[in-house]
Amino acid sequence: MPYTISQIADALGLHAEGDMSLIVTAVAEPAQAGASDLALAMKPEFADQLSSGKARAAMLWHGADWRAFGLAAALLAPRPRYAMAGLSAMMDAGAGYAPGRHPTAVIDPTAILADDVSVGAFAVIGPGAVIGAGSVIGAQVFVGQGARIGQGALLHPGVRIGHDVTIGDRFIAHFGASIGADGFSFVTPEPSAAEKVRETLGDQGDATAQSYARIHSLGSVTIGDDVELGANSCIDRGTVRDTQVGSGCKFDNLAQIGHNVVIGTDCLICAQVGIAGSSRIGNNVVLGGQTGVSDNLFIGDNVITGGATKVLSNVPSGRVMLGYPAMKMDTQLDLYRQLRRLPRLIADVARLKKAVSKPDPSD
Amino acid sequence: MPYTISQIADALGLHAEGDMSLIVTAVAEPAQAGASDLALAMKPEFADQLSSGKARAAMLWHGADWRAFGLAAALLAPRPRYAMAGLSAMMDAGAGYAPGRHPTAVIDPTAILADDVSVGAFAVIGPGAVIGAGSVIGAQVFVGQGARIGQGALLHPGVRIGHDVTIGDRFIAHFGASIGADGFSFVTPEPSAAEKVRETLGDQGDATAQSYARIHSLGSVTIGDDVELGANSCIDRGTVRDTQVGSGCKFDNLAQIGHNVVIGTDCLICAQVGIAGSSRIGNNVVLGGQTGVSDNLFIGDNVITGGATKVLSNVPSGRVMLGYPAMKMDTQLDLYRQLRRLPRLIADVARLKKAVSKPDPSD
Amino acid sequence: MPYTISQIADALGLHAEGDMSLIVTAVAEPAQAGASDLALAMKPEFADQLSSGKARAAMLWHGADWRAFGLAAALLAPRPRYAMAGLSAMMDAGAGYAPGRHPTAVIDPTAILADDVSVGAFAVIGPGAVIGAGSVIGAQVFVGQGARIGQGALLHPGVRIGHDVTIGDRFIAHFGASIGADGFSFVTPEPSAAEKVRETLGDQGDATAQSYARIHSLGSVTIGDDVELGANSCIDRGTVRDTQVGSGCKFDNLAQIGHNVVIGTDCLICAQVGIAGSSRIGNNVVLGGQTGVSDNLFIGDNVITGGATKVLSNVPSGRVMLGYPAMKMDTQLDLYRQLRRLPRLIADVARLKKAVSKPDPSD
Repeated sequence: MPYTISQIADALGLHAEGDMSLIVTAVAEPAQAGASDLALAMKPEFADQLSSGKARAAMLWHGADWRAFGLAAALLAPRPRYAMAGLSAMMDAGAGYAPGRHPTAVIDPTAILADDVSVGAFAVIGPGAVIGAGSVIGAQVFVGQGARIGQGALLHPGVRIGHDVTIGDRFIAHFGASIGADGFSFVTPEPSAAEKVRETLGDQGDATAQSYARIHSLGSVTIGDDVELGANSCIDRGTVRDTQVGSGCKFDNLAQIGHNVVIGTDCLICAQVGIAGSSRIGNNVVLGGQTGVSDNLFIGDNVITGGATKVLSNVPSGRVMLGYPAMKMDTQLDLYRQLRRLPRLIADVARLKKAVSKPDPSD
Repeated sequence: MPYTISQIADALGLHAEGDMSLIVTAVAEPAQAGASDLALAMKPEFADQLSSGKARAAMLWHGADWRAFGLAAALLAPRPRYAMAGLSAMMDAGAGYAPGRHPTAVIDPTAILADDVSVGAFAVIGPGAVIGAGSVIGAQVFVGQGARIGQGALLHPGVRIGHDVTIGDRFIAHFGASIGADGFSFVTPEPSAAEKVRETLGDQGDATAQSYARIHSLGSVTIGDDVELGANSCIDRGTVRDTQVGSGCKFDNLAQIGHNVVIGTDCLICAQVGIAGSSRIGNNVVLGGQTGVSDNLFIGDNVITGGATKVLSNVPSGRVMLGYPAMKMDTQLDLYRQLRRLPRLIADVARLKKAVSKPDPSD
Repeated sequence: MPYTISQIADALGLHAEGDMSLIVTAVAEPAQAGASDLALAMKPEFADQLSSGKARAAMLWHGADWRAFGLAAALLAPRPRYAMAGLSAMMDAGAGYAPGRHPTAVIDPTAILADDVSVGAFAVIGPGAVIGAGSVIGAQVFVGQGARIGQGALLHPGVRIGHDVTIGDRFIAHFGASIGADGFSFVTPEPSAAEKVRETLGDQGDATAQSYARIHSLGSVTIGDDVELGANSCIDRGTVRDTQVGSGCKFDNLAQIGHNVVIGTDCLICAQVGIAGSSRIGNNVVLGGQTGVSDNLFIGDNVITGGATKVLSNVPSGRVMLGYPAMKMDTQLDLYRQLRRLPRLIADVARLKKAVSKPDPSD
């Protein structure tokens, strides 16, 4: 994707200096950059590597002395990482999925696809499904009966969307993502041991072993606009009403969203996160990789969890959490420090016992 | 799915009162219910919302004063959650997979399918596979050579079943589930560092770096009746004998069952649980979401683990476990409480040291 | 797969005794072994079960008194588990994927496949893809535009390989594995709350809620020789340069490798492990099941983590780690023991406080 420095500066609203007509065709890290690459040197420590590469132009931070790095041109970004969003979009040649509808695709005659929707080989679009303009349905995708997908979707190969799922505009889903599989909901004829343990926090009582009956998922999944779902991630359908995901949410790979979960807007759900059934997540929440959220909890707005945090109870808005069980991050980090003192504490107490008992040998 | 109150009561063996001929067509939460919905108000706190909705009939708990909620009819269930199993089955219109065999499906001529088995578009059924009566094989499913699936199976799109896997009746598997991929079994020519660490609990000794040789999985997977497997979950084949899953087990999404694992009957394995190779799980075990079980362990009957429990050693029957490393739940909860006292304990000991050392300044 | 004892001994370079012309057709555990099976009795405790089975030949450890077990022949291995690698390869009849190219496969005319590459039903091979000799592309596999796969690959059904991914020789990938989905990389216009929390370790500061902009993945994935990837595992593409996996690495099911990650050679990555973006893993590293590695970390050569270890900071070469947060395994095991003493410690300190305060009631 060849662009002049001037074109990039205009497109991204950035300040540029030097040879504005210089053409770059790709981006590269400073040391690996060739003569036609735009080097990305967002911080001074990366810029030092410009001399190892051959870049004649670079994206640098605001105020960088680009001439000192031997460059012919520079884009100077006040927040280079944010500029990278626009730049990477310009430079992305895409996955090369062909336009049009592949002759092997099985599209039910009652499905309604906008004229320009492309459909890959071996995709299946069910009865009554609706797909908006500009959408790209990859090879081997499955879209169930009655599912509705907005404009500008990009479903990579192997994505599966269950029946009656509703999705907004500009949805992106990666290889093997599952939206709208049945929820995990089973019940025993009599109260089960697990139910008793929940009440007693540890005691099974006299519950007897039973087989499970299945509760069918009569709800579906409703997803807002601008949502992205990672490879092999799962969002299950609800029991009576829909599982809900607000606009702007981004999910990494292998995330698991249980039945009836409600997620607000603009949340970042990292890889391998699990949110159990019926929990509610606020807006602008960030759940770090491998975070777990137990069922039926409430996580307030702006909550952030560190990697592998296990949330076992409600979290008020604005909290930053870490650990298992989840605590406020600073409390948890204090605890980690205190635990390192435990051996000395045990030794101290042993010594104190001896010292205190000394005066009274009859004790 | 329209039913009279009377039909539902008869089908579920429930007591009903009021207008038995009233017709309902769907279920809904009380506040969202329309005039033709059966509202689900399983507990008094939900019933309060009946007045916000338009339901004329509801399912309530045994002894509820349904007339006080302005209803024309009521189903009164001694255990409403259990009644929901039967009710949701009646109300489930299903995913709409078409009957018959889609002309694009590739079914090996040596496969034996009962007459009424339906097979979706782009499904592949391998040589010698056997599929029982009433089974629904979704689009894009793969069934390997020699696999045997009982009656009444429901394989959603993208499920993959490896060669020679044996599955009982009424098996359900969701999008992307994998049954019978190879086990993860590798060996180095000389004892590896990891083997030494196991023996010494932390010391690699003088093991040198080596490449791995692959141990092939010659066993397969055997699954009982009434098993359900969540989206993108995996059950691996055994090394010499089959990995085994007993009847009545239910697995949520993204669960991982390693090679040679043996699971008893009626277990509930929640989302993102991992059971490592050769571990044995008893009957009626419940493993909470993100639970991990190390390899070669034995988990007794009726064991229950809380969310994210990491089981690093054997667990006797009937135990309720929590935490990392797993402890009895009540011990673990006590520990969490004790840890909160640690800052005060450290301060107390510091003060004690000062107090005790005071009388003896030469110490 | 029938072999004489002599053929097996020759193929595996093992010492054999007894009737070298005895034919075995499969392997079995001692108690289950039939008359034509080779029993696997790698340790004395397994050999005791030979009398419950019907095996006439067994693989035993070096120096075993095989005649005492009533056998007619024996293979005596200095390291039976390693011998199992070669033996299981000989005995593996495979998954039965048909040779040749299935007529339904969609292979772009610009793709270059070696003559003997087999391609299963409903597979899609994109423009410019290159696949080396002897490779088996399973049913329903997707290989993106410009992807390059070496010789002797085995891609099981449903594997998906993104555009421009490069893979070495003898690559194996299981059902639903994803290589080359986009990285999870988003940025807010102004520094986000999560960025502030990273700096302050817990304080969001005055960050305001913002929507995310997408950073496209312009890099791809490069994988060495002899790599194996488990079912539904994911390796994401890099942002600017490729995500890299060295030769000899083995990944179990449901593992997640983030964008820009660099992994050395001969690593063992167990099930459900997650490695977050831009972390670097050395050579001969073993990450136990459910291990998590935070982003931008460095894990040295020969590091081993126990099950569910959560690595939140760099780990020097040769360390054996356990727990959350990860510590040296022996320190962590000591801590677990110390924690068990915590109730007694709390009681001791309470008693000490009383004892010490006694002499001074005015305190």
